[in-house]
Amino acid sequence: MSFDALEDLVHLLTTLPGIGQRSAYRIAFHLIRQDDYQVEQLSGALTHMKKSIRFCAACGGLSETETCPICSDPSRNSEILCIVEEPQDIFAIEKTGEYNGYYHVLMGAISPLDGIGPGDLRIQELKEAVETRGIREIFIATNPTLEGDATANYISEMFFEKDILFSRISHGLQTGGSIEFADKSTLARSIRNRQKLV
Amino acid sequence: MSFDALEDLVHLLTTLPGIGQRSAYRIAFHLIRQDDYQVEQLSGALTHMKKSIRFCAACGGLSETETCPICSDPSRNSEILCIVEEPQDIFAIEKTGEYNGYYHVLMGAISPLDGIGPGDLRIQELKEAVETRGIREIFIATNPTLEGDATANYISEMFFEKDILFSRISHGLQTGGSIEFADKSTLARSIRNRQKLV
Repeated sequence: MSFDALEDLVHLLTTLPGIGQRSAYRIAFHLIRQDDYQVEQLSGALTHMKKSIRFCAACGGLSETETCPICSDPSRNSEILCIVEEPQDIFAIEKTGEYNGYYHVLMGAISPLDGIGPGDLRIQELKEAVETRGIREIFIATNPTLEGDATANYISEMFFEKDILFSRISHGLQTGGSIEFADKSTLARSIRNRQKLV
Repeated sequence: MSFDALEDLVHLLTTLPGIGQRSAYRIAFHLIRQDDYQVEQLSGALTHMKKSIRFCAACGGLSETETCPICSDPSRNSEILCIVEEPQDIFAIEKTGEYNGYYHVLMGAISPLDGIGPGDLRIQELKEAVETRGIREIFIATNPTLEGDATANYISEMFFEKDILFSRISHGLQTGGSIEFADKSTLARSIRNRQKLV
């Protein structure tokens, strides 16, 4: 006994990140028990979101318009450009309130094992932005992973000859964390990057 | 910076079982990067599934028609009725090929802590089925949980005066499992329910 409509939905659900076959069935069975209205609402929210959110033509972040609210804001510091891997990283950085420059989203990180090279990222757009916009500081906020580090190196080498300050988001112990339970590589980085007191 | 269409979708996704806010954002960001076509497909599969699958008017299992393929199959053994908590339990039992009777879905189990009493389950429908269909054996396949056990007891007491054989799906060690690592309560049940050899 099987139902095509159920199997089709389960198959599509398993293509979503973090959803295996078991969770997909659980979600489908949950939806069968809901009112028609609730399923219509979810289905509508999917297409509505897809229609109304696009990537900003300038930074590559999320936007409801051609350019995003950040790129359209003339009051920000135009001399500093923060480079992130994914659009959602912008949300996280904005929430801290610690950064007031513009952004550039790479749409990934260099990862030879996954077949992702610089040509697959928004590197050309980055070059153009740096060359035309009078950037004085490039603040690289790629993830603290092998891929993020490789990407940070690639970018800093790419603009090596230019008179640009490079900064990298600092790595170290989490706030509220403990030295005892920190993983070895985080702890090693926190020691290498130790800061002068005073 | 926030986008209503994104937040709405994330909110609806978090109402699904097993999806927290973090996974909901991950799924939404994944969908933003997909082709419009893929999101349309998922959205369509949701409404199509909801439109084409309903609960069988007889057993309460899943069906694309008024009564499900099992209830419509006259070749099955009509003297035995298997009682399960959820429609999806039928799939699991059918896959074993060990059962050839009909089913009755309760749509849950008695759980006073969650405020679910017999009145919230398909108990009245069960009564009618047993009284009108010449059932000789009730095979209770509720889950091996406190709630499943309470429900099994409730049902067997309900039909106590009738000349019906009651059976309960057996509990014990999993195939391929080990005594050493079995949880205490499973092991206790496997000992209490030990089977005669020969």
